[in-house]
Amino acid sequence: MEKKAFDLLTFGEIMLRLSPPRHARIVDGDVFEKRAGGAELNVASGVALLGLRTGIISRLPQNELGTFIKNRIRFVGVSDDFLCYDDSPSARLGIYYYEMGAAPRKPTIVYDRFNASVCGITLEDIPEEAFSSARMFHLSGISLALGTRDVAIQVLKKFKEHGAKISFDVNYRANLWGEDEARETIQSILPLVDVLFVSEETSRRMFHKTGELHDIMKSYAQEYGVKIVATTQRTVISPRKHNFTSVIYSAKEDQFYTEAPYTNIDVIDRIGSGDAYVAGVLFGLLKYDDPHKAMQFGNATSSVKNTVPGDLPSSDFKEIDRIIREHNATGPVSEMNR
Amino acid sequence: MEKKAFDLLTFGEIMLRLSPPRHARIVDGDVFEKRAGGAELNVASGVALLGLRTGIISRLPQNELGTFIKNRIRFVGVSDDFLCYDDSPSARLGIYYYEMGAAPRKPTIVYDRFNASVCGITLEDIPEEAFSSARMFHLSGISLALGTRDVAIQVLKKFKEHGAKISFDVNYRANLWGEDEARETIQSILPLVDVLFVSEETSRRMFHKTGELHDIMKSYAQEYGVKIVATTQRTVISPRKHNFTSVIYSAKEDQFYTEAPYTNIDVIDRIGSGDAYVAGVLFGLLKYDDPHKAMQFGNATSSVKNTVPGDLPSSDFKEIDRIIREHNATGPVSEMNR
Amino acid sequence: MEKKAFDLLTFGEIMLRLSPPRHARIVDGDVFEKRAGGAELNVASGVALLGLRTGIISRLPQNELGTFIKNRIRFVGVSDDFLCYDDSPSARLGIYYYEMGAAPRKPTIVYDRFNASVCGITLEDIPEEAFSSARMFHLSGISLALGTRDVAIQVLKKFKEHGAKISFDVNYRANLWGEDEARETIQSILPLVDVLFVSEETSRRMFHKTGELHDIMKSYAQEYGVKIVATTQRTVISPRKHNFTSVIYSAKEDQFYTEAPYTNIDVIDRIGSGDAYVAGVLFGLLKYDDPHKAMQFGNATSSVKNTVPGDLPSSDFKEIDRIIREHNATGPVSEMNR
Amino acid sequence: MEKKAFDLLTFGEIMLRLSPPRHARIVDGDVFEKRAGGAELNVASGVALLGLRTGIISRLPQNELGTFIKNRIRFVGVSDDFLCYDDSPSARLGIYYYEMGAAPRKPTIVYDRFNASVCGITLEDIPEEAFSSARMFHLSGISLALGTRDVAIQVLKKFKEHGAKISFDVNYRANLWGEDEARETIQSILPLVDVLFVSEETSRRMFHKTGELHDIMKSYAQEYGVKIVATTQRTVISPRKHNFTSVIYSAKEDQFYTEAPYTNIDVIDRIGSGDAYVAGVLFGLLKYDDPHKAMQFGNATSSVKNTVPGDLPSSDFKEIDRIIREHNATGPVSEMNR
Amino acid sequence: MEKKAFDLLTFGEIMLRLSPPRHARIVDGDVFEKRAGGAELNVASGVALLGLRTGIISRLPQNELGTFIKNRIRFVGVSDDFLCYDDSPSARLGIYYYEMGAAPRKPTIVYDRFNASVCGITLEDIPEEAFSSARMFHLSGISLALGTRDVAIQVLKKFKEHGAKISFDVNYRANLWGEDEARETIQSILPLVDVLFVSEETSRRMFHKTGELHDIMKSYAQEYGVKIVATTQRTVISPRKHNFTSVIYSAKEDQFYTEAPYTNIDVIDRIGSGDAYVAGVLFGLLKYDDPHKAMQFGNATSSVKNTVPGDLPSSDFKEIDRIIREHNATGPVSEMNR
Amino acid sequence: MEKKAFDLLTFGEIMLRLSPPRHARIVDGDVFEKRAGGAELNVASGVALLGLRTGIISRLPQNELGTFIKNRIRFVGVSDDFLCYDDSPSARLGIYYYEMGAAPRKPTIVYDRFNASVCGITLEDIPEEAFSSARMFHLSGISLALGTRDVAIQVLKKFKEHGAKISFDVNYRANLWGEDEARETIQSILPLVDVLFVSEETSRRMFHKTGELHDIMKSYAQEYGVKIVATTQRTVISPRKHNFTSVIYSAKEDQFYTEAPYTNIDVIDRIGSGDAYVAGVLFGLLKYDDPHKAMQFGNATSSVKNTVPGDLPSSDFKEIDRIIREHNATGPVSEMNR
Repeated sequence: MEKKAFDLLTFGEIMLRLSPPRHARIVDGDVFEKRAGGAELNVASGVALLGLRTGIISRLPQNELGTFIKNRIRFVGVSDDFLCYDDSPSARLGIYYYEMGAAPRKPTIVYDRFNASVCGITLEDIPEEAFSSARMFHLSGISLALGTRDVAIQVLKKFKEHGAKISFDVNYRANLWGEDEARETIQSILPLVDVLFVSEETSRRMFHKTGELHDIMKSYAQEYGVKIVATTQRTVISPRKHNFTSVIYSAKEDQFYTEAPYTNIDVIDRIGSGDAYVAGVLFGLLKYDDPHKAMQFGNATSSVKNTVPGDLPSSDFKEIDRIIREHNATGPVSEMNR
Repeated sequence: MEKKAFDLLTFGEIMLRLSPPRHARIVDGDVFEKRAGGAELNVASGVALLGLRTGIISRLPQNELGTFIKNRIRFVGVSDDFLCYDDSPSARLGIYYYEMGAAPRKPTIVYDRFNASVCGITLEDIPEEAFSSARMFHLSGISLALGTRDVAIQVLKKFKEHGAKISFDVNYRANLWGEDEARETIQSILPLVDVLFVSEETSRRMFHKTGELHDIMKSYAQEYGVKIVATTQRTVISPRKHNFTSVIYSAKEDQFYTEAPYTNIDVIDRIGSGDAYVAGVLFGLLKYDDPHKAMQFGNATSSVKNTVPGDLPSSDFKEIDRIIREHNATGPVSEMNR
Repeated sequence: MEKKAFDLLTFGEIMLRLSPPRHARIVDGDVFEKRAGGAELNVASGVALLGLRTGIISRLPQNELGTFIKNRIRFVGVSDDFLCYDDSPSARLGIYYYEMGAAPRKPTIVYDRFNASVCGITLEDIPEEAFSSARMFHLSGISLALGTRDVAIQVLKKFKEHGAKISFDVNYRANLWGEDEARETIQSILPLVDVLFVSEETSRRMFHKTGELHDIMKSYAQEYGVKIVATTQRTVISPRKHNFTSVIYSAKEDQFYTEAPYTNIDVIDRIGSGDAYVAGVLFGLLKYDDPHKAMQFGNATSSVKNTVPGDLPSSDFKEIDRIIREHNATGPVSEMNR
Repeated sequence: MEKKAFDLLTFGEIMLRLSPPRHARIVDGDVFEKRAGGAELNVASGVALLGLRTGIISRLPQNELGTFIKNRIRFVGVSDDFLCYDDSPSARLGIYYYEMGAAPRKPTIVYDRFNASVCGITLEDIPEEAFSSARMFHLSGISLALGTRDVAIQVLKKFKEHGAKISFDVNYRANLWGEDEARETIQSILPLVDVLFVSEETSRRMFHKTGELHDIMKSYAQEYGVKIVATTQRTVISPRKHNFTSVIYSAKEDQFYTEAPYTNIDVIDRIGSGDAYVAGVLFGLLKYDDPHKAMQFGNATSSVKNTVPGDLPSSDFKEIDRIIREHNATGPVSEMNR
Repeated sequence: MEKKAFDLLTFGEIMLRLSPPRHARIVDGDVFEKRAGGAELNVASGVALLGLRTGIISRLPQNELGTFIKNRIRFVGVSDDFLCYDDSPSARLGIYYYEMGAAPRKPTIVYDRFNASVCGITLEDIPEEAFSSARMFHLSGISLALGTRDVAIQVLKKFKEHGAKISFDVNYRANLWGEDEARETIQSILPLVDVLFVSEETSRRMFHKTGELHDIMKSYAQEYGVKIVATTQRTVISPRKHNFTSVIYSAKEDQFYTEAPYTNIDVIDRIGSGDAYVAGVLFGLLKYDDPHKAMQFGNATSSVKNTVPGDLPSSDFKEIDRIIREHNATGPVSEMNR
Repeated sequence: MEKKAFDLLTFGEIMLRLSPPRHARIVDGDVFEKRAGGAELNVASGVALLGLRTGIISRLPQNELGTFIKNRIRFVGVSDDFLCYDDSPSARLGIYYYEMGAAPRKPTIVYDRFNASVCGITLEDIPEEAFSSARMFHLSGISLALGTRDVAIQVLKKFKEHGAKISFDVNYRANLWGEDEARETIQSILPLVDVLFVSEETSRRMFHKTGELHDIMKSYAQEYGVKIVATTQRTVISPRKHNFTSVIYSAKEDQFYTEAPYTNIDVIDRIGSGDAYVAGVLFGLLKYDDPHKAMQFGNATSSVKNTVPGDLPSSDFKEIDRIIREHNATGPVSEMNR
């Protein structure tokens, strides 16, 4: 592949995440932990941590909250070159409140993201050079459900035109838009997509797919020309204990890749583990062009994300590489990293 | 039932609870978390959170600690109308220190509740109108073990006279009084009790009951005319993992109500989960007059209480209702409340 | 005065206040302190702490954030009887971010209050009984600057019709509305106002008053029939050191009341000290019907509010009474409350 | 002086001190800072930090709270050899709650120390060897005001008999006992006292002394044979800004020692600064037998104690020595210890 | 055994341990928890908590960090009599950073211990009386791997000469030294060792032992005259869930002692649990001279150490004794210590 | 000036700073706040925050601590392009411990920076392109006092050869090197320096300058060809209250620039305020090429740095610009940024 300034660019909303400390509740207590989060930022950050150059296109309020987010973006190694700012009186940062669960109490999310500054972003806010500077562009379905839909589609098309691979995570959220609207919108961009992330449940319910999972996954390649289709398989034992693996279909080899699940994952914070999966897979594709490695990196990155607080992954290549090796090890492994 | 100002009134000591932060120990560290707690307050608060009007009769020191407790009482939705205050030099708030456990280390409680201001409460401190203002009155056996015994019994009788249903949780604590003294005292009030909470172990050891649990429970109805008898069934897998369900006997239908246990409860803080059970049951009775619903609300409210820090429940109707529905659901349930 | 259920009712927005811990900055760090705040709540809470019965009319989102605010309202002793809830998908709680200052850095406030649930409140949300249940109704000019203007004026009028005294704090904020719009709106309600709080600067700039402060204050009585006019006098030595006193004009006696300023106030958190002043004055008027006592309570309550974190006052009658006595003491006063 | 196992032994109650974090209030918030405190422990700890061997005679509950206190005692370098334990059901640790002030709000203390385990200490709990193992014994008047009075006097006498110098800090607290009772009790032990700490106010009010301070101080030597009389001089500019110095009278040289006050002390936590003064003075006497040095060490140790949170001093010899030198320096001093 | 001033003395490095709060990561966040740690200190502290007199020989920097460590040493009941101090400009305290794990993420340790002040300790720094003042001397293999090797061996020999029993924990760390160097060094001191702690893995890999575990353990007695050989058996189910037991061989009785493992241990902090095992065993030997009790105390002390944060144990005799009894109980045990 | 990739590059050690929370002490307590710090990083960060592109050349350990520092560097907007990593077993990050002061207790610093990874940096670790990519290069005298001296001088010369302006802050620290060695070393590079920061005390003591300050400053221009000489003037009223201004001499105009001091600065954290001054001055020169503006930006940036915790500045252009305007305002200024 040719050399470009960025391996991956993304587009999407970046939010302030506010959480009561572990086990405390939103309705009580004196503090919120403050963090940055957002599906595309999570992906860009995960890929950056693994060693590639990434950036995010977004719009932030021109105030202290926007600066906090900008600082956090840089902290996690993602370029802020393509951020723009909203200095209108109504500028605001979308927020979500997240409370962790403990069986039988489930995690709770409260969104407050209407009218965020990112909804006012226009194509003119994005420098033309951005579109030709990335090997791959990633988008989440969330950006199609919100006020950013039209711009998001335009941006995706411009990246495609400039030769970037297109990655798309369906990420369907029933509380954001209806199934019919989502299906129609997404189907209109699927022909542009090279790498598709879609859950089995979404394939069945929203896309009305039926039959075996493998056939469902393959159908996206057949119908829309998608090259890589990835579907995660999470088993929720309790809010604090999950199993995780995934299946990847590569059209080129017409082959499925999977592995034994990571079991008994200690779930500290589940938010962002889906995005971490995307990050691991995209890293595997961008770095090695190898769907098997992509599946391995996806599974490991996602599994370990569950164990750290916050949306954003915090694992670098060394850590993920070691976890993959140990996941595949047959003999005893040391109990501690010294 | 006729409309009264309160659905439930209770009487009892309210204490300051001091706990080292999760996993830290009383003997070490720099901070205590400060909270309010007490069996009857926990019950009143649980019922209030579910949507009924409740209050507590108690006596607090007339100082900053008393004010803190008063503020917390209101925070959890319980009326402070029937609180009175002790402005003597020896005024004090009872305290207990609680340290969480982790297998094989058990939770530890240290009490410092002698001579608390509540012990000096008299019938004159309680406005006459209180006794006729509640549909139900609840008392815990703890109030009979402490210096509040005589007043507690008088109060219970006055509520009975004014037509309130009487709820009583035996709550036997061997470190507070002996079995003989407890048995005699409690037997003297059992004829007044409409709703009785008693554990299987207490029935056998303290009340010298033998035979099947169902027969034991029924015997309270037969001997004392109790209408509802409720017995919880907790399995302690480890300090941080419990199973929980309960059995309720209703004399009217001469029937037992139970359900499959909540399993693998993530125990963050076990204190108050028995009181939360009482709250759920009383809510079910007061709201629906339905022993089956009472059992369901009791089990759900108690199970979820284990997952939140502090004595006091923090679940409202919406949360408990959802947990009950999911406990009874047969298909897959969503992993998160969005 | 006749006996009513409430001494004071207010109407206004209640917000979530998020602050970095003392000296930390919004743009950095990991936590926000979470609190409730809002001009009218601050007033209602201050009066309640001093011993009178108060409540607030407002609208909150029907979610965990709304519940948090409701809990805090009760914690500070204000009735939640007249709160209503917004369960629409766009329900939201207004937020403001507050960062404390340290010379030469000033405190910073970032508002995010557009489209809050309170803006959708209607007269139908308020039970008719509310209007006749209070001896006094208080409103802040902020409620006239926001989407709540029309309802606020209707509410004020209904209280007036039902015989409540009307208290109004101009509280002009140039960042919320223009001077002309503010002047016209406020002038339309001034004939209904009994107790007016207005700063000297606002009198001069926004109301175009000129001349001596005493004459300016008197003019509100002469032109609009206001009975009590109160103007604070704050000297900012540094963000952490203020002096404070006030002047009150009573039309009945045609007299001005003032006292020597509180000096060298240790400012921990300045927000809400203006509202605490209002609370102290209203308490003095409601309790003693005495403008001199009102001025004393206003000055003391406001001064001490500066020394506690959060918008809400936390001083009860005992504390304020002692501070007033010591402010007027001539001999030595003890260094500590034991 | 002959060599003994301890330079200083003390006798007294050790309490748990609970404080809301700086600026927070007892009536609000979620945590208390937990610390050990007590007049005599503060003194013993201050002398130990400066380099001498000290211990404390006291009685603690035989539970986790007692262990916490024991650990803290050792942490600050004081021997726990002469602690004994109360394993009765009513064992309890005295508590006090302390809230810091900010002008015009004063610091607040709430005591909960009745019936503490220390009140049950008897002479039999103290090993006979203790009385002959110390060069000096120190007592605070607080121990004479509480349930420990009789034992305290017996202990003091036994130390005197075994040749220890006796230090006594009058430390009169009007909320603990009346002036007449205090005067009579203290006068009965004054003939045994070698080193006396008494404030000017207490000399005048409680001991009915009149005239010049120097004459008053001298009178204790003349009437009771006291060798050293020390009186502190604190000026409270605000709860957070004090000036401090002291006067020491030495009967042997018939001379007064004083120095220019430490000015603009940044008061973080005022509690224990009086005890720190005692510690500094006793260190000066025990180490150098020099009243001038004693006055210097007393002033410096007390001044710097105000700047650290908690009752207990935390300054070692190096720090105090440097502060004394800089207090007396005429040229510029470096701004920082590097 | 004859009475000596100390039951146990140890020699070794004491480090500052810095950990992000539970679940947080070194690479992120704003705080480190600060603690003291070190293999020999952990052992000395564990034995002291159980009721015997212990001390540690070490060298600390003569600065605030050294003072912090000294304070913590005393806090945990270990004598600081034999600490010496380094006041050179290069004085430093060794540090290690510890991050807890959560499956599949393992715990991480980063060492920064080169050139610590302890490496400069010489025999002259240790008062001659130390060597004859202890019934037993304990050393960890870590002290042989670092710059302290020569002095450690000299110290061990001097204690042996003065009649102390010698305890040695092989504690092999591949990241500190090679297997050949370790084997040769350790073999040179094994003839002096009375009590040997060695893991099965180390026996096989580093000492090249083969065959059954029992035969391996016995061989140390046969080859070097070791009296007690102890080998732990830990099963790591996940970073937060372990099982634990051990085998002890006593040459005198030529017998092996073991028991059913503690299962499902809630691992809060695994560091120091090996040292806690040593502490339990040594306590059993020193107090009861009973290998079976030693094995029981070792297993219980180690198991419970896993449940408390920090390297240092915090369990006293009462707690360990109760845990042992409950581990061996056949009927139901109470769920809580009241 | 020509366009280069960076406006400013620096070279120097980046350390981990560990501080007890405000008012707490190193010798006590449970946590350290963790931050990044270092003279040159502070400068680069300050200039970046004001809007220019900066980077730092340094060497970090290849471990989690190095990653933490790298993340923080990016957080504050400084490029990590020229960082290199040390993966040797002895890799370490230099540390310093900082405890804030409160009169009469001074701030305390304990360094532990020997043998840090940065000391092993070589010219080969720095990509050749670095030297031509910056308009200005800044060095602190601290880098000449440590093991980095030779490389630092080589780097400075290479930047000079490639046309960068050279900025040098003498920053003399007597505890790092002697006056003679410092003077000789610094004099050898002064002919290369364009912008010189030197305190009056250092000019007099270390450089043996005498006479008026203005003449001293001018002499550096005359003797070494320095273009800009800047000297700060700080008055320490107490550890928590400073005044600050500075004098700048520009050789081109042969003129001195100064202004009235910022008074009564609330000092929260004094560390890094000298570096913030350098940052402000360099920004003024790089952005406006105007010594008067440079002096204004230096004074404002330094003054406000004192009010935020941590070494690193956190003020952006908007904030500094407002502070400068208000410092020069003659009328009243608003009390708060809304």
